[in-house]
Amino acid sequence: MFKAVINADILKDSIEAISTLVDEAKLRLSKDGISIRAVDPANVAMISFDLHPDAFESYECTDGEIGLNLETLVDILSMSERSDKIEIKLDPEAHNLLLKMGGLAYTLSLIDLAAMRKEPKVPSLELPAKVTLKGSDLRLAIKAAEKVSDHLALGVDGSTFFMEAESDTNRVRLQLTKDELISLDASGPARSLFSLDYLSDMSKAISKANEVTVHLGKDYPIKINFSVAGGKGKVEYLLAPRIESD
Amino acid sequence: MFKAVINADILKDSIEAISTLVDEAKLRLSKDGISIRAVDPANVAMISFDLHPDAFESYECTDGEIGLNLETLVDILSMSERSDKIEIKLDPEAHNLLLKMGGLAYTLSLIDLAAMRKEPKVPSLELPAKVTLKGSDLRLAIKAAEKVSDHLALGVDGSTFFMEAESDTNRVRLQLTKDELISLDASGPARSLFSLDYLSDMSKAISKANEVTVHLGKDYPIKINFSVAGGKGKVEYLLAPRIESD
Amino acid sequence: MFKAVINADILKDSIEAISTLVDEAKLRLSKDGISIRAVDPANVAMISFDLHPDAFESYECTDGEIGLNLETLVDILSMSERSDKIEIKLDPEAHNLLLKMGGLAYTLSLIDLAAMRKEPKVPSLELPAKVTLKGSDLRLAIKAAEKVSDHLALGVDGSTFFMEAESDTNRVRLQLTKDELISLDASGPARSLFSLDYLSDMSKAISKANEVTVHLGKDYPIKINFSVAGGKGKVEYLLAPRIESD
Repeated sequence: MFKAVINADILKDSIEAISTLVDEAKLRLSKDGISIRAVDPANVAMISFDLHPDAFESYECTDGEIGLNLETLVDILSMSERSDKIEIKLDPEAHNLLLKMGGLAYTLSLIDLAAMRKEPKVPSLELPAKVTLKGSDLRLAIKAAEKVSDHLALGVDGSTFFMEAESDTNRVRLQLTKDELISLDASGPARSLFSLDYLSDMSKAISKANEVTVHLGKDYPIKINFSVAGGKGKVEYLLAPRIESD
Repeated sequence: MFKAVINADILKDSIEAISTLVDEAKLRLSKDGISIRAVDPANVAMISFDLHPDAFESYECTDGEIGLNLETLVDILSMSERSDKIEIKLDPEAHNLLLKMGGLAYTLSLIDLAAMRKEPKVPSLELPAKVTLKGSDLRLAIKAAEKVSDHLALGVDGSTFFMEAESDTNRVRLQLTKDELISLDASGPARSLFSLDYLSDMSKAISKANEVTVHLGKDYPIKINFSVAGGKGKVEYLLAPRIESD
Repeated sequence: MFKAVINADILKDSIEAISTLVDEAKLRLSKDGISIRAVDPANVAMISFDLHPDAFESYECTDGEIGLNLETLVDILSMSERSDKIEIKLDPEAHNLLLKMGGLAYTLSLIDLAAMRKEPKVPSLELPAKVTLKGSDLRLAIKAAEKVSDHLALGVDGSTFFMEAESDTNRVRLQLTKDELISLDASGPARSLFSLDYLSDMSKAISKANEVTVHLGKDYPIKINFSVAGGKGKVEYLLAPRIESD
């Protein structure tokens, strides 16, 4: 059983943070909220998403799991105003999710769970550097890098967080010192190279966050954590590094 | 003879309501105004359009008929500000329509009437259900349907007007009860299926109307009536149904 | 040596006036400012651009010449806000131009001067008609012409400046009399036909100018002069005529 009411803007922001990486996802439903663990088709990026029942206007739920096409869901949500209330109800017999907003009632077929990828295990990583900054600063770095390259290096050097991108002929560097960041905590230098494709996809959701925490290592995956839904939802992106060729 | 002055916004709204269905049209000119009857190339949709002389700032006209390329006309009108006055003058010898707006003077060749399709006869239909609603509500239904399908069913069930669209996996339904409508008057149930292509084309003009009247039957054409030009112009769309296959 | 600080909006407007015609350009640097003379790849349009040191917040420069990819530069400048200050510094050893804006530092490779086209000689032309008008009026004519044709005739007839475009079936004419212009000074009639491709490219920069001076002849090139950077920069476009075929 799953029956809930949620503000359109919260649901939109949450789903878009996920759908930018995966077209469909398993939602694990429980009285403690909704959680999603998913990996992109190329196995390069992982998302962990958790939404607390307090993010909802009302929330009734028993344990269960459903498969959803997120692309269709985003499309449907685009019909709502950000201030709309959305009623969601699971119809397990008809294998449907019902969404009501304004006078509109959408019936969205569930995806057969057996036909879906298994949920990934989230690896536990020891990452030596931890930087907290404004989401808009991280987005700026990603946009600036897009102008010259298709990959971006992120790292920590002393008390400076830097982002660097270069093509054969051009180069861009953005560096933020400790006092321009919200916090920086590193046990040593870190630097890893990432595909801009993925970071660009992630950056829209990232840019809306007041605070984003980035965990970095040396040629190691990056972990990016931030909140949605006024702190009631948590997003964690994990992105594998690219090999740096000189 | 045809010589007139009209506000750009009135002319734009009028022409766009027609050009969304047909690229060229015969305009029947008389002292009682301008009228157009046209069918789209696939013979699925028909438009009847009538513009009263009061819609013009000034209007002098003797009986006649001219053929116009509406696509070019829309393109030309896009150069005007909505508050511009547009001077229109027929030059029958040069086979031209002259349009002046601001410092700009456009000369638009007439299309040879002999080379054009015949004007259709507007069929008289007995449609059992009549619903009047806000144009923006009808547009909302059309936009919502576009998210899941390429056709849309419209109908009346008791004192409810409904619109429904479905794909293999998803379904959307919008229903408006009598008190959410401006009026509803039906002698029995009605339901017909229509191509969204046509309804989407029509929806821009429809959405600007405060009141739209829809006549419906059972697997029968739909008739959509609304005013433009502050009530001085009348648009009627007629759209053939699609066969519902289950 | 070249080291300067300039407002982003001034640099953007200046570079975009040039990059619309050429992808790369030689910049001649001196204590008197920056100047560029460039011809488009098809040898149809020429630009002369001069920016006075007063256009800069600070300006230090010794004589020199550098080759820049303007497309990349425009791309980089799109990362700046219009009110940003941009620091520019030449690094002749590394063969780079450094640009700093906000926390971002861009390194832009110079183009090898030996691999670039020679600077054109600006021809001295005797053009009998000189018209000064608002940039927005010239842009209006260009946009209006785009609706019907791919070329535009510009000319002077008595005390009227006219612009005319026609397709096989349609025609547009914009004429401005002496009192609708800022000034008109002609020793005789003038009329030349130009490719709209080029005029459209030029029109964005032109439209921002309060005053544009146009020099015209009979089947002769057009010369278009206007200021940028609050009068501290000067742009001159020269465009070859097309042959009028009837």
